[in-house]
Amino acid sequence: MTQQRMLSGIKPTGDMHIGNYFGALKQWVDMQDDYDTFIFIPDYHALISVQDKEKMERLIMDVAINLLAIGLDPEKVTLYKQSDVPCHTEACWIFNCLTTMPQLMRGHAFKDNEAKNKDVSVGLFDYPVLQAADIVLYDAQLVPVGEDQRQHIEMTREIVRKFNNTFGDTFIEPQAVIKEEVGTIIGSDGQKMSKSYGNTLPVFASETETEKYIKSVPMDSKDISEVKNPDEYPLYSIAKLFCNEAQDTELRAMFEQGGVGYGDIKKHVTSLINDYLRPMRARRTELENDLDLVKNILKKGAEKASNIANAKMKEVREKVGFEIK
Amino acid sequence: MTQQRMLSGIKPTGDMHIGNYFGALKQWVDMQDDYDTFIFIPDYHALISVQDKEKMERLIMDVAINLLAIGLDPEKVTLYKQSDVPCHTEACWIFNCLTTMPQLMRGHAFKDNEAKNKDVSVGLFDYPVLQAADIVLYDAQLVPVGEDQRQHIEMTREIVRKFNNTFGDTFIEPQAVIKEEVGTIIGSDGQKMSKSYGNTLPVFASETETEKYIKSVPMDSKDISEVKNPDEYPLYSIAKLFCNEAQDTELRAMFEQGGVGYGDIKKHVTSLINDYLRPMRARRTELENDLDLVKNILKKGAEKASNIANAKMKEVREKVGFEIK
Repeated sequence: MTQQRMLSGIKPTGDMHIGNYFGALKQWVDMQDDYDTFIFIPDYHALISVQDKEKMERLIMDVAINLLAIGLDPEKVTLYKQSDVPCHTEACWIFNCLTTMPQLMRGHAFKDNEAKNKDVSVGLFDYPVLQAADIVLYDAQLVPVGEDQRQHIEMTREIVRKFNNTFGDTFIEPQAVIKEEVGTIIGSDGQKMSKSYGNTLPVFASETETEKYIKSVPMDSKDISEVKNPDEYPLYSIAKLFCNEAQDTELRAMFEQGGVGYGDIKKHVTSLINDYLRPMRARRTELENDLDLVKNILKKGAEKASNIANAKMKEVREKVGFEIK
Repeated sequence: MTQQRMLSGIKPTGDMHIGNYFGALKQWVDMQDDYDTFIFIPDYHALISVQDKEKMERLIMDVAINLLAIGLDPEKVTLYKQSDVPCHTEACWIFNCLTTMPQLMRGHAFKDNEAKNKDVSVGLFDYPVLQAADIVLYDAQLVPVGEDQRQHIEMTREIVRKFNNTFGDTFIEPQAVIKEEVGTIIGSDGQKMSKSYGNTLPVFASETETEKYIKSVPMDSKDISEVKNPDEYPLYSIAKLFCNEAQDTELRAMFEQGGVGYGDIKKHVTSLINDYLRPMRARRTELENDLDLVKNILKKGAEKASNIANAKMKEVREKVGFEIK
């Protein structure tokens, strides 16, 4: 049986933190064995907010390195940057002609930003249409996304139906895969982990930085001997992400049985986290020292992606009447 | 001294009439000796209204044939269809990221259509941005357009300034060349010649159709012997477009001296028009019978245009950070 195709992208904007990792990226790593996995770096999208050559180049390379470091295997995954497959923008234009203004004005990315800033760019407005192109040129069946992207995938499906109805069956309607079970990932202050709250733990922080981060998590003033419910502590909420079953049992016991001081629990948690992240951090350092390897992986990914997308695009061009025989 | 580059496009929608010809297209033929002339068939734009494969293909070929028939010389002019240079759409996306919604909402093509139809497409809204790409990828200095396009060329200039300010000097600001002297071209009913008034004379009408058209032009009930002012007659207004100086003097005399009946004047005018258009009509028939020649001209044009546009696009990609060394 052929594998289903899974496709997703990560906006290249800044450091990857454990909220990103457990919220979305780890899922890709877990899926790569079972799905024909396409992961792209959406630099055309990034241009909406990043308009600086050096910053753009650094972001693209950082994202590629991070994705490889957390375990995306270029033998299993097609990893590429969007701008290496320029026909995404050609499909975007064609879809623009099939999409109405009211359809896009319902888009929440646009609505949110419009409320904040009248000078929102056309790129931000048109974002969901380019995203539709990103997905459908590959006949991707599954698109793992956050809840906030559900509406955009629905727009992609609308565009597919419009195109197929107008020009004949060409694209398939992708399914959004919303990862439900993880829930909100909590930061050191007990709020949702988010850059805007300044409460993130970067995956590629040093071991000392990780130690400091865990030290900063607020506890309470209960006596060392008291029995505690781990589920009430942000520290446990963070730590359990890194635990296998045996480690989780052991960690819960430290809270539930009493007798272990918060300082010792924090040391234990710091070790758990650093043990978990150590191979990724080491891999990141290796890749940083071998940028040609990273560029080569992106290049191979782009070749494979281009072959698929360009073949689909040829079909599209024929159907709309651009390929005169 | 190198020639200035002149670039223009004609929307592939329907028959070419003499209003189109004298209003814009003849100007291109006149300019091709003195300018490095690029003329493209904007099929990406046409997709906004033409969403039918056969219709699109026929329109593209019809426009190409018409342009060659009226005298565009493929040895002098780079004639191509837009969709053969897909990087127009890539530049369009990049410019979308530099253009704000309020900028585009001022666009009158959008405003007019919004008033008529709420379901205006994103393509129509984004049209001026693609048009900017059409022009600036070729460093075109001069863009001959109708008065209604003046605002769009100003938008192109705004986009150029924004790009150059953000990423460094890359594009030149094109100048609109508005052909003033022709003025409004009048149809058989004395109104502006326009498909929407049903008063057009197609350039490639048959000689009999031309005769019928001229017969249908309303005159008045003045006596044959009366002296008349030719400038008061739609017939003269149409006919003078086809006259050289001597022919114009002769025609005016037929009105001014009296003694020539309207039937005879109309016969004279019909001959003038048919004589003028006969070589174009013959050339059109030849080209219809040699479609491979037409396709080959478009292919060669596309190659030359692609070389220029792709080189510029490479520079753009480097400047925004998409070409990681």
